[in-house]
Amino acid sequence: MYYQIAGHTFTSRLLTGTGKFQSASVMQQSLLASDTELVTMALRRVDLVAQQDEILPVLTALGVKLLPNTSGARTAEEAVFVAELAREALQTNWLKLEIHPDPRYLLPDPIETLKAAELLVAKGFVVLPYCGADPVLCKRLEEAGCAAVMPLGAPIGSNQGLQTRDFLRIIIEQSRVPVIVDAGIGAPSHAAEALELGASAVLVNTAIASAADPIAMAKAFKLACEAGALAHYAGLATRQQQAVASSPLTAFLESL
Amino acid sequence: MYYQIAGHTFTSRLLTGTGKFQSASVMQQSLLASDTELVTMALRRVDLVAQQDEILPVLTALGVKLLPNTSGARTAEEAVFVAELAREALQTNWLKLEIHPDPRYLLPDPIETLKAAELLVAKGFVVLPYCGADPVLCKRLEEAGCAAVMPLGAPIGSNQGLQTRDFLRIIIEQSRVPVIVDAGIGAPSHAAEALELGASAVLVNTAIASAADPIAMAKAFKLACEAGALAHYAGLATRQQQAVASSPLTAFLESL
Amino acid sequence: MYYQIAGHTFTSRLLTGTGKFQSASVMQQSLLASDTELVTMALRRVDLVAQQDEILPVLTALGVKLLPNTSGARTAEEAVFVAELAREALQTNWLKLEIHPDPRYLLPDPIETLKAAELLVAKGFVVLPYCGADPVLCKRLEEAGCAAVMPLGAPIGSNQGLQTRDFLRIIIEQSRVPVIVDAGIGAPSHAAEALELGASAVLVNTAIASAADPIAMAKAFKLACEAGALAHYAGLATRQQQAVASSPLTAFLESL
Amino acid sequence: MYYQIAGHTFTSRLLTGTGKFQSASVMQQSLLASDTELVTMALRRVDLVAQQDEILPVLTALGVKLLPNTSGARTAEEAVFVAELAREALQTNWLKLEIHPDPRYLLPDPIETLKAAELLVAKGFVVLPYCGADPVLCKRLEEAGCAAVMPLGAPIGSNQGLQTRDFLRIIIEQSRVPVIVDAGIGAPSHAAEALELGASAVLVNTAIASAADPIAMAKAFKLACEAGALAHYAGLATRQQQAVASSPLTAFLESL
Repeated sequence: MYYQIAGHTFTSRLLTGTGKFQSASVMQQSLLASDTELVTMALRRVDLVAQQDEILPVLTALGVKLLPNTSGARTAEEAVFVAELAREALQTNWLKLEIHPDPRYLLPDPIETLKAAELLVAKGFVVLPYCGADPVLCKRLEEAGCAAVMPLGAPIGSNQGLQTRDFLRIIIEQSRVPVIVDAGIGAPSHAAEALELGASAVLVNTAIASAADPIAMAKAFKLACEAGALAHYAGLATRQQQAVASSPLTAFLESL
Repeated sequence: MYYQIAGHTFTSRLLTGTGKFQSASVMQQSLLASDTELVTMALRRVDLVAQQDEILPVLTALGVKLLPNTSGARTAEEAVFVAELAREALQTNWLKLEIHPDPRYLLPDPIETLKAAELLVAKGFVVLPYCGADPVLCKRLEEAGCAAVMPLGAPIGSNQGLQTRDFLRIIIEQSRVPVIVDAGIGAPSHAAEALELGASAVLVNTAIASAADPIAMAKAFKLACEAGALAHYAGLATRQQQAVASSPLTAFLESL
Repeated sequence: MYYQIAGHTFTSRLLTGTGKFQSASVMQQSLLASDTELVTMALRRVDLVAQQDEILPVLTALGVKLLPNTSGARTAEEAVFVAELAREALQTNWLKLEIHPDPRYLLPDPIETLKAAELLVAKGFVVLPYCGADPVLCKRLEEAGCAAVMPLGAPIGSNQGLQTRDFLRIIIEQSRVPVIVDAGIGAPSHAAEALELGASAVLVNTAIASAADPIAMAKAFKLACEAGALAHYAGLATRQQQAVASSPLTAFLESL
Repeated sequence: MYYQIAGHTFTSRLLTGTGKFQSASVMQQSLLASDTELVTMALRRVDLVAQQDEILPVLTALGVKLLPNTSGARTAEEAVFVAELAREALQTNWLKLEIHPDPRYLLPDPIETLKAAELLVAKGFVVLPYCGADPVLCKRLEEAGCAAVMPLGAPIGSNQGLQTRDFLRIIIEQSRVPVIVDAGIGAPSHAAEALELGASAVLVNTAIASAADPIAMAKAFKLACEAGALAHYAGLATRQQQAVASSPLTAFLESL
């Protein structure tokens, strides 16, 4: 039940982030409870200047793989700049590419994202781009050499679930790289649904970090991801327009 | 994380049924994988006459609690008749009350169900009625002494999930007895959603028994139920109309 | 494109109510713009005592048929009492039967509603019961002699549209009396959808009376009802899982 | 209640196409019934070679404005080539830009579409691009000089309605050019909903041409568009989580 990104094997289907946790300690325990193996983080100025960051030592201690992101980049140029800083600072060529020019809805820019992906692949990065749930764009990102695609389920932080499910279905059907559903996943049931559809993984940050009990919620997402992946493997029955009885009593009563 | 029905404590949030499995052996392994503690079964003529039934010994060996149902009953009178036969045959006063006069959609009859519930409570049964997702009816069934209510998510066997979620929410808010979502649950994500909403449990039969791999699917439902119940406990974040960034990079780039 | 209730022919598919309008004048113009032919109204004490009501003269002047309702009744007994007062005061035996014991969500009581329907039919009323979207209950109300059934789309005043569409579809398929979708219709698109599904009519009150411009909104609902009924007649194409091109250019470019 | 594209005023909110009609005569009567003022058509080889096309004379007789499309184009280069042929043949610089490399789902290519839009605007075309419901892409198409944007509601020909409504809402909020919802609109209720959300217009082809009675369906869509636009103007009431009574009878009964 494992899957691979760029030749690297993962067992956990749950990617997490480091934003919005109340403390480094809560983050640590939440990530531990989540069983996550791949954690995205923004590169903050303080990381570079003062080296006093609390997050990095926690992630290192947990032994998770780092996935620095370019959150805040508005253009391909900015994204490439941040990516190179991150590679230098964090000693990894893995990158979650995020370009969102719009500060209100933080939706990704398809044009700049593809441009940046091409540049970053050429520079040797393992690129996982955050993008709209656009099947043609996802195909082009795959053809540009991206290691996975990360289409959104709904706007970041909205917790609305798979509003884009009809398009995710097509993306999953067509993709030859892992599909990781990013953004909008607000409940374990949403994560389970993404994996039932055949996504390889989901990325969840806000819904864990903002829960009343983040550690318990992290565990809930872990279980839901296992459930969804297992259900996809086990073969879901199809939806029916008409009821079909589970129980056979009718004949008994009719024979009385 | 346990809950109670009629003073009986359950840890598992997953009720299952015995219909549609390919063999008694597949049923046995599926129920085992599901960790279920309460299993519904129809009373079939053969049980009474020939005592050659394969199902009962399996359930007995698994140590699960039996929940005989009145599937096939079209009136309160028929339901009471079947209930008394079941109590005699299976030595339990627990009963899943099902009355559905319509053979096509198998939807429950609210009038006959309430009437039968009143009669059966008076006769000492622990009554768990299957019913429409009707908040007023559920309140009346509770007032009639039912030990739980089992509103439907969608027509039986349709695998369509929580089509009635707006009404389930009201039922859960108002109910003082456990709410068990029955019928329509076609995927682990549906089960997780029901428990996230605050239902006490779900009943799943078709979606497990009809899966390509019923044993793996039973395990998937078990995990999803754990996930949903834990998420309800952990406090889900609310849905937002607007995006909220998880990562703090914007300020970094703006300061360049 | 007309339909009949109890032998009375209607052209308009839009039933309206008289609640929540800012003034009798706005109500008058809105009802006029709506082309409604059947208008429900609650019987208020003042109507009986002071005969100073503003609403009744407006409705009389418009020439619409009155449909007094039993809004506020909590039991069959109260509903019958109000019905008889209304028949006396308004000189009509038509009645919208509403029984909702719960003051918060105003959801109808299936048991009391059926009981009252039986009593009122016996007393010579033309009964149109407001009820949950419960196919078995609707069938029983029809069998009790109701002239139409009025299942809800969503809780009263919620403006959420056809949350119950899967059940409305079954009700419409099975019913031999007109199905009028009541409650929850918050936009003309919801009304159109109900008629596209094959409902005979819809009842709209809040969404018109609470609009910024109730008169324009009434006209919008009128048009939407005409659209939905015409589309049902014209035969909607079915939903497809796969895209099908409308335009034939592909061959042209391939031949270049 | 009119709107403008590129300085040209339209009263009808319904754009139509010419594909899939059984005959030129049915098309003519359908377009007439729809009150459409802007009709898209693919340029077919026969138009250019043999001048025996049946469609063009019908459209000319109806007096509608032509909107040639580039359906079938897989790249910006092909789209520009077709656009110039169309401008020559049909004597109009208006163009519906469609680029969909994928023959199965016919989804638009965001990269090639933006590239072609920039080229065609520079060549003096009035460009209306068909695109995904991607708010950032729509903004970029607007900035490139497009006269309107045509985001999709669901895959072409799927008749599934506004699967992308959450994104359409953002596009409409941010756009300074008309937003015309294209593809996926399968019923008049879908068209009404798009206009209620604030879209300027919708494009419908399959749902009219494939109806059992295309002429009646065209009329139904015309009415639904009028309803939706009027409702948007009249100010829809917001959705409520809780029921609010329309009728005031409660107090009457409580005072008994």
